Amino acid sequence: MLLALCSANPSKRKPYTPCKNLVFYYHDIIYNGVNAANATSSIVAARQGANLTKLATQFHFGDIVVFDDPITLDNNLHSTPIGRAQGLYVYDGKNIFTAWFSLALVFNGPHHQGTITLAGADPTLQKTRTLTVTGGTGDFFMHRGIATL
Amino acid sequence: MLLALCSANPSKRKPYTPCKNLVFYYHDIIYNGVNAANATSSIVAARQGANLTKLATQFHFGDIVVFDDPITLDNNLHSTPIGRAQGLYVYDGKNIFTAWFSLALVFNGPHHQGTITLAGADPTLQKTRTLTVTGGTGDFFMHRGIATL
Amino acid sequence: MLLALCSANPSKRKPYTPCKNLVFYYHDIIYNGVNAANATSSIVAARQGANLTKLATQFHFGDIVVFDDPITLDNNLHSTPIGRAQGLYVYDGKNIFTAWFSLALVFNGPHHQGTITLAGADPTLQKTRTLTVTGGTGDFFMHRGIATL
Repeated sequence: MLLALCSANPSKRKPYTPCKNLVFYYHDIIYNGVNAANATSSIVAARQGANLTKLATQFHFGDIVVFDDPITLDNNLHSTPIGRAQGLYVYDGKNIFTAWFSLALVFNGPHHQGTITLAGADPTLQKTRTLTVTGGTGDFFMHRGIATL
Repeated sequence: MLLALCSANPSKRKPYTPCKNLVFYYHDIIYNGVNAANATSSIVAARQGANLTKLATQFHFGDIVVFDDPITLDNNLHSTPIGRAQGLYVYDGKNIFTAWFSLALVFNGPHHQGTITLAGADPTLQKTRTLTVTGGTGDFFMHRGIATL
Repeated sequence: MLLALCSANPSKRKPYTPCKNLVFYYHDIIYNGVNAANATSSIVAARQGANLTKLATQFHFGDIVVFDDPITLDNNLHSTPIGRAQGLYVYDGKNIFTAWFSLALVFNGPHHQGTITLAGADPTLQKTRTLTVTGGTGDFFMHRGIATL
């Protein structure tokens, strides 16, 4: 995930550097009925006839997944997390794989303190997809921008 | 739906026209147990005692609906779609019809490329209701504003 | 809840006071199977094995709650509401109590007319938590900022 962030709230304490880029990875392991110890996300709602341990047929339409995914600086699930991606995604395509994301990136470490609020459409099969950064707190107060998956 | 959009990110390539208006229609057909072929949305969660094929009693409180609705330029379900409205709405009024909307308008045609992220309250029985535009991608990068239903 | 709001849309009608603070209380009573008359919120989705009348074990992970909570000017549930907090929260921590909030504050009285759109992470056990204001309508058109719980 590549984030491009801008703020209209320049700090008085340091030179004004309104835009910044962040790059990191997050890791999602969906609960399938037998992997409770390792799973980082669960289906919690599904349309009539579907269930909560298997993604629904027909592009998973209607499945809502809640997640608590570790964020790492490299593409390694076992690296020390620098934060958590927490929120939900919803498969909302009837004729194509696509999802709606609502989440926060929660940072609480030496690199960053604060949260980034994200929302947007994720057309899963495209190589790059873009969510919108709708707000932030702490280090990211009043920030906006985009996140590219 | 009438959108009033503003951007704080003027392009260097063309004269700065920060605000724009868009008008279009979207069409929602909720799944009722027998209309799977035509339905564009499904109830996927409901409070204790309610079900997924019929909107709940008492102002539908608690029903979550996931949708993938065609967007058209006129009020005709059968016109060629110029995009999709995808996301979810949640009936969240105990004593009145009102809903929470989280959605993206996804445009991928000759007119517009990109997405608009929307959120907000929809007091269903009022003649006009206003959602907030919280972000955008592509043609709508860094846009904000409102959408009037 | 303490809101700090800023607008990039100064009104021409009155002196430009871009930032404002609001303080108020909201009151959430979750449905537990027997308190339908008084409850202001309901669990509407939960992970496999959990139910809709009791918050799930393990930090309530996966529970989605829809709410319609009165907003008051003092910490008294029985004061006259000045608006409603309507939307949903999602418990999204596997190893800690934390939640994702998506909601609107809907004001329709002598003090304020309009809505404030909020989203963000609520690490429930921290003394103060901060959501982001991602947009607004009416008196709050084009506003952004933060809300501290």
